[in-house]
Amino acid sequence: MRATLMYGAGNVRVENVPDAGLVESRDALVRVTHAGICGSDLWPYKSMEPSYEGRRMGHEFIGVVEETGADVVTMKSGDLVIAPFVWSDGTCIFCRRGLQPSCLHGGRYGFDGVDGGQGEAVRVPRADGTLVVLPVEPDDKRMPSLLALSDVMSTGHHAALSAKVEPGKSVAVVGDGAVGLCAVIAAKRLGAEQVILLGRNSDRTAIGVGFGATEVVSERGEEAVERVRELTGGLGVDCALECVGLEQSTETALKIVRPGGAVARVGVPQEHTLPHAFEWFMDNVTVSGGPAPARAYIPELLPDVLEGRIDPGRVFDRTGSLDEVPDGYRAMNDREALKVLIEV
Amino acid sequence: MRATLMYGAGNVRVENVPDAGLVESRDALVRVTHAGICGSDLWPYKSMEPSYEGRRMGHEFIGVVEETGADVVTMKSGDLVIAPFVWSDGTCIFCRRGLQPSCLHGGRYGFDGVDGGQGEAVRVPRADGTLVVLPVEPDDKRMPSLLALSDVMSTGHHAALSAKVEPGKSVAVVGDGAVGLCAVIAAKRLGAEQVILLGRNSDRTAIGVGFGATEVVSERGEEAVERVRELTGGLGVDCALECVGLEQSTETALKIVRPGGAVARVGVPQEHTLPHAFEWFMDNVTVSGGPAPARAYIPELLPDVLEGRIDPGRVFDRTGSLDEVPDGYRAMNDREALKVLIEV
Repeated sequence: MRATLMYGAGNVRVENVPDAGLVESRDALVRVTHAGICGSDLWPYKSMEPSYEGRRMGHEFIGVVEETGADVVTMKSGDLVIAPFVWSDGTCIFCRRGLQPSCLHGGRYGFDGVDGGQGEAVRVPRADGTLVVLPVEPDDKRMPSLLALSDVMSTGHHAALSAKVEPGKSVAVVGDGAVGLCAVIAAKRLGAEQVILLGRNSDRTAIGVGFGATEVVSERGEEAVERVRELTGGLGVDCALECVGLEQSTETALKIVRPGGAVARVGVPQEHTLPHAFEWFMDNVTVSGGPAPARAYIPELLPDVLEGRIDPGRVFDRTGSLDEVPDGYRAMNDREALKVLIEV
Repeated sequence: MRATLMYGAGNVRVENVPDAGLVESRDALVRVTHAGICGSDLWPYKSMEPSYEGRRMGHEFIGVVEETGADVVTMKSGDLVIAPFVWSDGTCIFCRRGLQPSCLHGGRYGFDGVDGGQGEAVRVPRADGTLVVLPVEPDDKRMPSLLALSDVMSTGHHAALSAKVEPGKSVAVVGDGAVGLCAVIAAKRLGAEQVILLGRNSDRTAIGVGFGATEVVSERGEEAVERVRELTGGLGVDCALECVGLEQSTETALKIVRPGGAVARVGVPQEHTLPHAFEWFMDNVTVSGGPAPARAYIPELLPDVLEGRIDPGRVFDRTGSLDEVPDGYRAMNDREALKVLIEV
């Protein structure tokens, strides 16, 4: 079958690999119909050390179940399923608490002999604990929004929940990438009164305004902090949603939150320390967040997508075939495309 | 009147100062009967730059109201009152949310012309928003436990609340100082099933066991982390209460918490960055805490002290007069005394 491999920074290829097939009794073999390229795929695209074997890529996908192991009970051949961005057993202490990314027996696509999502097929381990059956056909026009649930929309929702967004609160979303824009949807959905979107790309912030952002702040650094304070009566926001992961964006998030407020980090942190640890202590600020339990959120968010109340699929601004994956990485890295959807 | 001043590291004196007196209509003049020396007083005791004017000290006290300004309505002369460790207006947005240390018009004792608590009298600004009337006489035998509410017991409670301690959860308290020991009381009071106390001083950890600690870990660093993991089935604790503020104790707290758990910091941080920011992101760990809103907690904790359900006053293991304050600092700094109560 064909699948995407990364051999180092800037070096992505679609190649022939061994066909995916069942290995364990709880596996499902999924024929991929739609896959996404994720902002987090760009971190190795920028920095990965050259590798002879390469690394299988992709963790956002929807597909049709082709075959199931003997112990799989919640799906059958022919079902359309969506994969959260990590696989999980669904039964361990963390899965039962709705924290599937910390599953004691779970893992990541593209690692440890598990296929990546940017390919023709994936063997999904622990299928019952991982996949969610979708009640639509593969050619459904809502497919981009459904695919967004596998990662970016669930991640935006996680940011909003972790930062305790509630009706009437003021929220800032730091970052106008796909996750930041989905965080705008999530904040609005949970009743935020004010949603300030911090971003510099006017095409993207325009999507954010369409999603419900009440103000856009295009300044950076101290100027952005000043501007958010002006917009919040000098107090700062109740909730800051950090959707980038870089040092400056994290610093901004920590500085724009008011005493007693919360910062949620969902951008994968590129630094190993968190700054201003004395200042946000003095302000009783809470810092939370991490990888989103998409498996827990998909059933919760699905009705809103199916009934048209949210439309996160608008973050996909380019569609391509599997062979166009390498150019999709390039386009996203050059900020020519916001997010690329692959029709396999 | 006599009051305590610090003139630099290791240099504490009790001297004559101008008598305290009303300045504003919302002030109360309080004749101090009992004061505490706080672990946080030891930070300047270790490091303060020499100062010609000196700094007025003390922020834990109980006393009798001598005189009130025209706008004070919740207390009268002769009332016994307890002061939370900061003063606050009680009406701003943060006070209304129960976050008095962030009061927009509040401040600290010993700064900006406000007296310190380790002296004969204190002018307390915004008395209605700050002081709590105690329904006992100054010679009540529960006085040490009542005084503990002004800071250390409220701070321990804040740690437990911030780390979301709930019935059945496993908790670790990092630090066997007065705050750590009070955090043990608080964790137990909120229903924690397991309370692991990390500390090396056997006299202090014995008090902690008396307060309800289920296990004591005397190891430090990686060994302490290992030991806590052993005691929690390899998972780590749900809640880690950081009650020291040093780099190593903070690192330990971050490493002993399980995925989805929470670290509450209440020890004043001596570092400006927080380590392992990638690791606790991946584990969806929440970090919260800060200065405790003692003003909000005193009314909540008071019945438990008055009815004998908690006895945080046991952290005071030495009593002295006002003239003995300098030796009290020395004794606490030398770890000869755990916490000193001053009878003024």
